[in-house]
Formats: sequence, C-alpha cells, structure tokens
Amino acid sequence: MKYNADLEKLCADYAFDGLKESVAAFRAGNPGRKVVDLGVGDVCLPLPRVVGEAMAKASLELCEKKTFRGYPPAGGYSFLKQKIVGRYAAEGIALSEDEIFVSDGTKSDVTRVCELFGRANVLIPTPCYPATRDVNYAAGNAVAELPCVKEEDFLPFPPYGKKYDVVWLCSPNNPTGSALSFEGLRRWIDYALSVGALVVYDGAYADFGDGRAPRSVYRDARALRCAVELRSFSKGAGFTGVRCGYAVVPRAAGEYNRLMKRNGGCRFNGVSYVTQRGAEAALSDEGRKINEKNVKFYKTNAEILKNAFKNKNLWYNINDGSPYVFAEVPKGFSSADFCARLLRETGVVATAGSNFGKAGEGFFRLSAFCSREDAFWASEAVGNFLETL
Amino acid sequence: MKYNADLEKLCADYAFDGLKESVAAFRAGNPGRKVVDLGVGDVCLPLPRVVGEAMAKASLELCEKKTFRGYPPAGGYSFLKQKIVGRYAAEGIALSEDEIFVSDGTKSDVTRVCELFGRANVLIPTPCYPATRDVNYAAGNAVAELPCVKEEDFLPFPPYGKKYDVVWLCSPNNPTGSALSFEGLRRWIDYALSVGALVVYDGAYADFGDGRAPRSVYRDARALRCAVELRSFSKGAGFTGVRCGYAVVPRAAGEYNRLMKRNGGCRFNGVSYVTQRGAEAALSDEGRKINEKNVKFYKTNAEILKNAFKNKNLWYNINDGSPYVFAEVPKGFSSADFCARLLRETGVVATAGSNFGKAGEGFFRLSAFCSREDAFWASEAVGNFLETL
Repeated sequence: MKYNADLEKLCADYAFDGLKESVAAFRAGNPGRKVVDLGVGDVCLPLPRVVGEAMAKASLELCEKKTFRGYPPAGGYSFLKQKIVGRYAAEGIALSEDEIFVSDGTKSDVTRVCELFGRANVLIPTPCYPATRDVNYAAGNAVAELPCVKEEDFLPFPPYGKKYDVVWLCSPNNPTGSALSFEGLRRWIDYALSVGALVVYDGAYADFGDGRAPRSVYRDARALRCAVELRSFSKGAGFTGVRCGYAVVPRAAGEYNRLMKRNGGCRFNGVSYVTQRGAEAALSDEGRKINEKNVKFYKTNAEILKNAFKNKNLWYNINDGSPYVFAEVPKGFSSADFCARLLRETGVVATAGSNFGKAGEGFFRLSAFCSREDAFWASEAVGNFLETL
Repeated sequence: MKYNADLEKLCADYAFDGLKESVAAFRAGNPGRKVVDLGVGDVCLPLPRVVGEAMAKASLELCEKKTFRGYPPAGGYSFLKQKIVGRYAAEGIALSEDEIFVSDGTKSDVTRVCELFGRANVLIPTPCYPATRDVNYAAGNAVAELPCVKEEDFLPFPPYGKKYDVVWLCSPNNPTGSALSFEGLRRWIDYALSVGALVVYDGAYADFGDGRAPRSVYRDARALRCAVELRSFSKGAGFTGVRCGYAVVPRAAGEYNRLMKRNGGCRFNGVSYVTQRGAEAALSDEGRKINEKNVKFYKTNAEILKNAFKNKNLWYNINDGSPYVFAEVPKGFSSADFCARLLRETGVVATAGSNFGKAGEGFFRLSAFCSREDAFWASEAVGNFLETL
C-alpha cells in the first residue's frame, strides 16, 4: 500500500478535532460540571429567518418538475455571483461574475487554491488558522512560518530580500485579531509584485473589521494582479453548518483564473442550489442587517471576555476588530498546560496558542462565539482564576 | 508566478463543461430548433417530496436557537451514517460508522481519495468517468490507462505481472454500462491483494445494476482489506443539485482510514446539515421506493434509446444495468465528428466517446436521464439518422 508521505508532516489530530475530543472526555469525566466551550470558533446565533426560509423554499422547488434543478454551475449560480459582485462594487471594487468561485467554505477553498500553484515555496505568518498550515504541508509545499510577535501586535511584515511563490495572509487574523492597515496591505502588495508572488488573502473575518482596516485585499487595486481573496458566510450569517463561501480569482492575476475554472471543473460539482439561495438571502438587505447585528453581538462578547485581562499585566489583543480574544498565558505555563489547567479549574475551554503555529506558544485563544450569559460567566471565571496565579 | 504543472496535463476544458458550451452555442445559432440534450448525465426527475420536506424542515430548524447546529462532524452526522451502515448490513456487509465519510459527491471524493496515497502509479480502465482520469493527472499521479474493448463488452481484466499502487474501477461503468460479475470482482481483489494495490471502487451507479452483478465491492469480503468504495445520492434520488455522496474507507485497509480522518479534518468542514437530513430521508422506506422507481424510469428510457441501434450492425451495450447507452459510431466517423453531425442533423446531443479516454474513440454515449417523451423522440431521430448513413 502506498501512502501520501506529505500527510505524515501533520500532527496526529487536526487541532480542533483533538480539542473537541478532549472536551468530550472532560465532560464525561466531570458530569454535572458547568463547561463553557470557547475553544472551536463555532457560532451559536441561529440562521437569519430570511435565509432559512429561502432555503426551505428552494428545497421544495426541487420537488417540482418545473422548478427542479440538476447540477449547479461549477463556479456558482449567477443569482448569487451577481450579489457578490454588487457588494464589491459598493466598495469601489470592479469584479466580474467569472472571477467569483462559490464554494462550500474557506477550508475547502484553501485546498482548491493550493491546487493552482502545485508544490511551491509558501510563507505563512503565524499564529495562523491551523487548516492553512496543515493543508500547505499536506499539499507538499515547502512551508516557511513567519513568526509575528506581541510587541508588534502580531502584524506581519514582508520578508524583504527573500523570495516566496505564495504568501498567505489572514486579516483580521484568526487567532490574533490583528488586521492589516491600508499601509500594511500596500507593503505586502509591493512585496508580492516585486518578487512575483501570489497573495492568498483569507478574509473570513472581514465583517469583524473595525473600519480602519481595508475589508478587501482589492482596496489596493494592484492586488487584482497578484491576489486571491477568500470569503465566508460562516460567522456573521451563521453558516458554519450550512457551508458556503467563495474565492475571488481575478482574471488579471496571471493564469490562476483559467486554472481555477479548469481544476474546479474536474474536482468539484458546485454548491447545493438550496445553500446558494440561502447565501443570496444572506446578502439581501434584511440578511445583511442581521449579519451586522450578529457581528456586533459577538464583538461585544469579545469585549466582555477581555475584561478578564484588565490590570493583569498580560498582553492581549485590545483592538476590537475580531471575534477572538488572544492573550498571553501567565509565566511558567506552556500554552497547552495553561489551557488544561484553566479547563480543570474553571470549566472554560480555550485553545492553546501552540495550535496556531510556534509563534502562538505562550498565548491562548478564547472564542467570543457564545451566548452573552456565557461571555459574562467565562470572563469572571477566567479573571478570578488569573488572580489566583 | 508559479503554476501547478500537473494541471497542464489536462485538456483545455473539462469534458462536460466543453460540451455544455458547444450545446449553448448550437442553441444560440439555431433558435427554434428542438434540441434533446442527452449529453451530460444530469437527472430531470424532481427530488422525492419526502427529501425536499426533510430539507425544508431542517432549514427552518436552523433558524431557532434551540435547534440550531453549527459545524457538522467532518465525516458526517451519525443519523445519516447509521442509515448507511444499516443499508450495508442488509446486504450482509458489516461496517462501522467511522468507516463512512459523508461528502458533497463523488467528484469531490475522487480528489479526497487521491490525497490519501499521494503521487502513485495508478491504473484506470477506460472508457472512464472523465473526472477520474483528470483528477489523477492533476494530482501528479503516473496514470496508465487500461483500454477495454467492445469484444469483451468493455469489461476490465487485471494486468497480471504488472504492479500498480492504485486501481480505479467503476461498476456499473460510466459510460459503457459494463458491470463486474462476482467472478470479475474476485479477480480484481486477487490482483490487488497480490500486489498490495488499493482498489477505488466507484459505485455511483450501483442502484442501476441488474442484480446479477455485486452492488458493492465488499461483496467480496476480502475487499475490506484493500478497497475504498464511493457512493452517490445523485442519480436515483435526484441529488445532482443537492450534492451528497460518501466514501467507505474500511479500518482493515491499512492506514487509509486514519489518513482520511486526518486529511478530512484539515481540508473539509463536512456537508450541510440540511443536505444530510435530505440524504437521510432518501434512505427512508419512502425515499428508497421513489429511488427505485426513478431508476426503473431511467433504465426504461435507456431501453427505448437502444431501439435506435437494433439491426444497425453497430455494437451497443445490450445489458440493462446502466442509465447510459454506449454505442459504436458508423464507419468513417471519429466519435467527435459523429456527435457534431448528429447534433446538426437531429438536434440530439451525445457525448463523444473520446471524452472517456482513448478506448472510447469510435463510440458515443447517450444519457437516459431525460423525459420519456424525449427518449422516444431521440430514439426515433437517432435511428432514422443512422439509416441515412
């Protein structure tokens, strides 16, 4: 039997799968204990009604001969791509429908984009979304981590003088919450154009930005020549269980648009009609209003959670453009040990920073995707626990 | 910019994308002409009501806080995997839930399975589903085609004395309709075990089998040690637009089960809750009854289409275990030329056999996924056209 040796570069479990298992074990071993799970960044606010109703209507349409639809277009239905193009146009960014590739979410898009460039030298600023690092290793890329540091608010700066084929940026960043400014973005586009690199810009958290940072990589228009952007309906619109996102692959960015169409044609049969009708509704006026309300709700949770860290002499991300709290662990702990002890003592589940790359060691992440009640409860529990150390 | 050189091994268009485009061009150039599209194998019977209603219900559940669900388990919900395991058990095949990996369809599964073994020596009997060949090339595998011939009803026989890492089998076959007998299957499992190869068994058309052929590769129990099976809800249950299928990766088949879980964890966030409730309903008693009725309907269409070939002295697949008619083109035509002329003269869209690999040259495929009326109309049109040659 022949196995893909690149998969052996991965650690045994996907970070969040491993986390889910250890939480399940803790619950089983501590029946009756209150557990507040701020580990995996999974939403809890329900799907906007306008979205669910659009999906229910679409489901029943498929039961009628006249309104039945078979294979979706591989890149997405025009009704959805038009809406997406319209949203970009409202930000002054001109895209055409054939530059949008609707997908079942950013995790899948990371693989699909990797397939475009093959085995490459890639640079990934860390801490980063674990799937980004994992998939690049699994795809056989030569991966260089660019460690970011708390003293620079975990912002990544280009490695002048070094050449990479591909640079992965995530802004606002998961897990650190740091967001590239217009100036920071300009620097990366300068770098990419100067060395001929492709920028893959993970904008899954674009809706959480604080308005001072560019929402899209294409706010630097030169990015149309060198950047792919990934977007998701998961967090604001509550699509983690519905699965929809999209990749923007501009025609001006070399051969990637052609390859995305060709590769997608043989690997992917597109996203459910039902899901795409839901995504269309999420981009309606009503859908966007609820999206905005949801984002505000989670960001307020993050602020509440941050109260735990005030006057503790520990670094944490004070900026308010993220649904995550990223904070330093007290001296003497590894991030994994701290998270284990936090769970044992308080019942609060956090993710150890080491799951996000070596640069995350010494930090931990709390997800603000929880109820308001849990945010208050966890904030107090974590704050009190930190006092005892 | 760096591009994936493996993608350059593909022809310019994915077969069916190219076909869709040329049909659209024909329609545009011939307004008012009746066109019967038997090209792409896309279903037309609507989704069973029990399925659509389950999906509508699930969509609305997601709008309520209490019944909202976030990320699905990467390998699929237990409620669906139980049903799948139950179906196998009814055929005497013992599988456990963690050997089932629910997906968004067979096309995606082809890539996911390729990722398990990395760059390998693979053998693909042809004619074959174009995505199988394309994805293996795109994944950087060394692809050997095993040409099958009409004199043996396009049945594939193992290449004794030669060693491959992976063998792709599709039974009943798309496009030829040939199905491995129990004896034929036994030969391939013998071969795989003797050389240490993995068999990937594409059973997307299992429901169309005529009962004399094994529905599952695991009807040879030794296949649990060396075979992955792919299954789909697309054709019988009308899921081409909903997107659901699954891969079976037995724990006894080396490291693949572990790797599938690990690789899936970082690359794929699972299938929509709504879709999985639909698939569950497709496996209910009522859903399966409609599935069976649909399969019978399409198979009857295939029989009607085959009337066009009676007494024409051209080979065609007489067996009745397939929704496709695969037939020889008259002497003097390439398969592409014949299909172009057929469209021009009759308005019937067929797929040139060359799209299914070199061994398909000289043949063409008619899909029986059409209305009864179109089947009769096309059968007569094709039959009359053949008379004129």
